[in-house]
Amino acid sequence: MQSPDNLFECVRAIALAAKAAAPGLAGADLGTRNGALLAAADFLLRDLDKVLAANGEDLAQARSAGMSEAMLDRLRLDAPRVEGMAAALRSLVGLPDPLGGVDEMWTRPNQLRVGRRRIPLGVIGIIYEARPNVSSDAAGLCIKSGNAVILKGGREALQSNRAIVAVMQEGLRHVGLDPAAVSYVPYVEREAVAHLLTLEEAIDLVIPRGGEGLIRFVTEHATMPVIKHYKGVCHIYVHETAEVGMVTPIVLNAKVQRPSVCNAVETLLVDARWPVAHLRAVAEALWNAGVTLHVCAESHVVLGDHAQCVLATDEDWGREYLSLDLAVRIVRDQEAAVAHIRRYGSLHTEAILTSSYAAAERFLAEVDSSTVMVNASTRFADGGELGLGAEIGISTTKLHAFGPMGLRELTTTKFVVYGQGQVRV
Amino acid sequence: MQSPDNLFECVRAIALAAKAAAPGLAGADLGTRNGALLAAADFLLRDLDKVLAANGEDLAQARSAGMSEAMLDRLRLDAPRVEGMAAALRSLVGLPDPLGGVDEMWTRPNQLRVGRRRIPLGVIGIIYEARPNVSSDAAGLCIKSGNAVILKGGREALQSNRAIVAVMQEGLRHVGLDPAAVSYVPYVEREAVAHLLTLEEAIDLVIPRGGEGLIRFVTEHATMPVIKHYKGVCHIYVHETAEVGMVTPIVLNAKVQRPSVCNAVETLLVDARWPVAHLRAVAEALWNAGVTLHVCAESHVVLGDHAQCVLATDEDWGREYLSLDLAVRIVRDQEAAVAHIRRYGSLHTEAILTSSYAAAERFLAEVDSSTVMVNASTRFADGGELGLGAEIGISTTKLHAFGPMGLRELTTTKFVVYGQGQVRV
Repeated sequence: MQSPDNLFECVRAIALAAKAAAPGLAGADLGTRNGALLAAADFLLRDLDKVLAANGEDLAQARSAGMSEAMLDRLRLDAPRVEGMAAALRSLVGLPDPLGGVDEMWTRPNQLRVGRRRIPLGVIGIIYEARPNVSSDAAGLCIKSGNAVILKGGREALQSNRAIVAVMQEGLRHVGLDPAAVSYVPYVEREAVAHLLTLEEAIDLVIPRGGEGLIRFVTEHATMPVIKHYKGVCHIYVHETAEVGMVTPIVLNAKVQRPSVCNAVETLLVDARWPVAHLRAVAEALWNAGVTLHVCAESHVVLGDHAQCVLATDEDWGREYLSLDLAVRIVRDQEAAVAHIRRYGSLHTEAILTSSYAAAERFLAEVDSSTVMVNASTRFADGGELGLGAEIGISTTKLHAFGPMGLRELTTTKFVVYGQGQVRV
Repeated sequence: MQSPDNLFECVRAIALAAKAAAPGLAGADLGTRNGALLAAADFLLRDLDKVLAANGEDLAQARSAGMSEAMLDRLRLDAPRVEGMAAALRSLVGLPDPLGGVDEMWTRPNQLRVGRRRIPLGVIGIIYEARPNVSSDAAGLCIKSGNAVILKGGREALQSNRAIVAVMQEGLRHVGLDPAAVSYVPYVEREAVAHLLTLEEAIDLVIPRGGEGLIRFVTEHATMPVIKHYKGVCHIYVHETAEVGMVTPIVLNAKVQRPSVCNAVETLLVDARWPVAHLRAVAEALWNAGVTLHVCAESHVVLGDHAQCVLATDEDWGREYLSLDLAVRIVRDQEAAVAHIRRYGSLHTEAILTSSYAAAERFLAEVDSSTVMVNASTRFADGGELGLGAEIGISTTKLHAFGPMGLRELTTTKFVVYGQGQVRV
């Protein structure tokens, strides 16, 4: 959509409409919110042709603009993908209500009863790039958690996103809720995002989902809170007591199962006292799976010359390959491993592989990444895998949510105080 | 202190030193952290003369620069005030450890055990204005919660703050902790604050404490999360069933006990069905206490002409008087009261006075301020009064902490995962 001259006022009007719709959604009971999700899932399938036609327009334009095949694949919708989006909406229905519960309650000496009650955050802005399924996934999580949402997708997915948002809005209307609780900003200029990020008066939280450039832009411009993660540089530390029978499958899984995602392992730290024969066995397994190892001088001595073995440079430590590459470093001891992680890690996910109770407890205490694991693959750092039911993103910012964010992280608490006439002395 | 040419590098060096000190403090056990607090309290009294001499320098300079008496009083330290600061540090020792506990733990179908463990936020920046006691209060809360802190006080309190920080650092050194865990930025230019606010690499959270100008400056410049509140426009809604015997003392207390603070009431909303004789009784009590009422046309009819009764203008709704002034508005019903609060409130604290169970429950559900009360004075919206043990500030931002913030709000959780070799399928 061509941006109007009064772009700021137009963006603000969208945000204020979402804010006005928020209390109605926040006050809706669980049955109503679930009803909106089920209706939206139905309408998504009923309007499949419309959604695919809109996506076809986006694809045609993207193709003529020279978009790469990989990016086109992200943008593409087909019947199975839309069915997956509908199924994701339906799967939210079975999750418990994140709202209304009182986390804790206590009585003061003056008999005031004080509790902390779960409420929605209010209005959430989601700023994302190519994948149109984010429109229904994020809107669904917000509806379930009683939050109004303002979506701002990438320009290349504009028609797809608008078609999906229309369906989500029809779901809201179907149960008597204000459709503006799912709003979309259709202006494609980055200026529209910059405007949105000044509307602290209307937006309680912004979640950017996309590349590092987008995330930095949002962080620098936003006046409201931002939850984000820049990247995932996950480490596995092999302790001297690790069993090779556990190390090989975990490292393989963490690197190879899906190398392009943020919870794949990027650096393997190996204790100098771990038998070198074991390290060779792990390397063989990784080579056989097509992994190139970027190794420190000491591990190069152990592993010798191999086509998939290159000497690491300083740039390999802390690097997010997102590919079949793995940095390997031999470290003196656990202290050196933790120091390496503190220096080069991204606060995402780290794992220790060990048979030692003391080493495990120490690693869990000393490593302050958002997810710290013992004897498990880093690939479990995911809201669904950890049991949160659903995930709107992962945060490596410590405030509010640290690590995978589920429905509960889309809520906050207010203090509720039950008095009988108390005054302060 | 005159700022050096390489101000950014100097500020960054301070921040990185605090970051380097943070893991040592985070890993210190409760006894060590409490020992630092007790030692700092002792040293504060031992060095009383030094602290007062430093404060005397600040006062002399401020007086010659023409500072008002009210501001000079904020800046002034004397023996009782410093003893109060030492007592505040000691009082933290008795509070439970906010660190190390696991909030919840569950087992996944694949037998992974997943928990959320309490950890410090890391490094906290506190940016404040005239009161030097903030230096020890905030540093004490951070030490107790295992957080390194970077303090940046106002230029008028520079010598006082440096003397207090030196004492806090000696407390840390006394128990073998790195004194850089309490760091101070001694450069007085606002540019130094602006530099600090770009250091997302080193600082996990910034808390501005001061006037609205300072808070807006911090919000606009910070790339890291900010917790703040701009102002407190607290409302009391008198429901038609409220007992006048409860209303008068609560409204008086909320307005008069300490009118200059953010949890004092600023607007009284009175249900149109509440007996007018009762409203007159409340007004008489307020007038007798020296309060000026800024009344709507309808309540003016009820209250008549009085020297302390002026017609309200639109500017009176949502105004933070911080003085013996109170806006009064008659509203049609509870719905109108809630609509008024949504429009003019500041998400700080609102109270309903009522005998109706249904009205109380509805108010608690519908009003989304950070503290919502039934039949109690708004003056209880305070960390100490609500039972948090201590308070570092109040947040009207919904993320992470909403309302008074205690020690627990200076922590976050990381996921800890106990595996037995699991890989993702």
